[in-house]
Amino acid sequence: MSATKSQSAKKAAPDAARRSERSRRAIYDAALSLVGEIGYPRTTIEGIAARAGVGKQTIYRWWGSKAEVLMEAFIDLNERNTEVAAERHPGYPGDPAVLPDSGDIEADFKLLLHATVDVLKDPVFEAPARALAAEGLADRAFSEAFVARLLMPGLDLYADRLRAAQEAGQVRTEVDPTIARDLFSGPLAQRWLQNTGPLDHAYADTIVEYALYGIGARPPRS
Amino acid sequence: MSATKSQSAKKAAPDAARRSERSRRAIYDAALSLVGEIGYPRTTIEGIAARAGVGKQTIYRWWGSKAEVLMEAFIDLNERNTEVAAERHPGYPGDPAVLPDSGDIEADFKLLLHATVDVLKDPVFEAPARALAAEGLADRAFSEAFVARLLMPGLDLYADRLRAAQEAGQVRTEVDPTIARDLFSGPLAQRWLQNTGPLDHAYADTIVEYALYGIGARPPRS
Repeated sequence: MSATKSQSAKKAAPDAARRSERSRRAIYDAALSLVGEIGYPRTTIEGIAARAGVGKQTIYRWWGSKAEVLMEAFIDLNERNTEVAAERHPGYPGDPAVLPDSGDIEADFKLLLHATVDVLKDPVFEAPARALAAEGLADRAFSEAFVARLLMPGLDLYADRLRAAQEAGQVRTEVDPTIARDLFSGPLAQRWLQNTGPLDHAYADTIVEYALYGIGARPPRS
Repeated sequence: MSATKSQSAKKAAPDAARRSERSRRAIYDAALSLVGEIGYPRTTIEGIAARAGVGKQTIYRWWGSKAEVLMEAFIDLNERNTEVAAERHPGYPGDPAVLPDSGDIEADFKLLLHATVDVLKDPVFEAPARALAAEGLADRAFSEAFVARLLMPGLDLYADRLRAAQEAGQVRTEVDPTIARDLFSGPLAQRWLQNTGPLDHAYADTIVEYALYGIGARPPRS
């Protein structure tokens, strides 16, 4: 949902729906900030409710667990981050289910990774996302649930974009898009998760160029 | 130190040194297994001493903190893992400060990443390493200390190997080795840290090929 659509929906809605929307937003914000501050294990529905200024029965009416609240809070944050990217970068689609596709795979992946770097370094995203990643390292089942819901949909879009580039003759047909995507996402993930080096737009550009064109000396062709 | 050297050193050593070596090994093993089971925050010097069957003053005689014990335990484990890789793969150097260098960058990086995959999936390494990575996500200063001591030395070797390949004409001279190394290490790190897909030798081979030769369609040359 775009910011514009959300605004007009609100205008038409009755007071109860408007109050619900306000509560939902307060709960998402509380869940994200709390988990970023104290980590996943110590975050509770009671704590989220207290910070959001709602009763905990309000949370239980909509969600079954703190994991559910957090997953939806991240999906909502991803929608808002996509809107920000669309405002900042002309040509960036405002829909989280759509990646840039100008027909130029290099330009599109650079744009995509610029937006990704911006999100990874945004404190609103970074603190809670690190807390979830840490919990994922301690608990494999938790990791798989969160990865399936929050991370893989984005990585699947990377693969789709690479398939389109194969059809356009920009990526070799024998390349496996579900492996090739890791050349783009993996280096950023490692720098973000393990602090192995600076993470900025220039780095993202270099990674895209190396992944597309290779670092090896190309043999002369006859 | 290689296994062979260690064995002969032991034979020549007096009883006290032999007892010290046994205690040191027990302390390393206890530290690694304990942090893998209960996580970094709950691991204590007392807990390590109890599991190793030594007095805690024995640990304090050699190390200042649990972080110090763990760092040295990982450095020791890395030495042992290198010996295993050298036994398993003909041509793999038994010295952790030396990477395979047969003169063929593709073969050498495949061998290196095979050995890396083996270590990442070895429970003796995996559980404690995940626990440290999780703590690194919660504590930036902790992350930087551990990365500087345990991760960067290995990544610096990757960059050195790429520089040698540049001199041999196998990697383009304009490539930055401190960024290019991330094309090899980043995808493996992401699959290991975030469970985004299978992590095996075939995956490692594909990553090496894509990184060296690029996924982009190469323009025809005249």
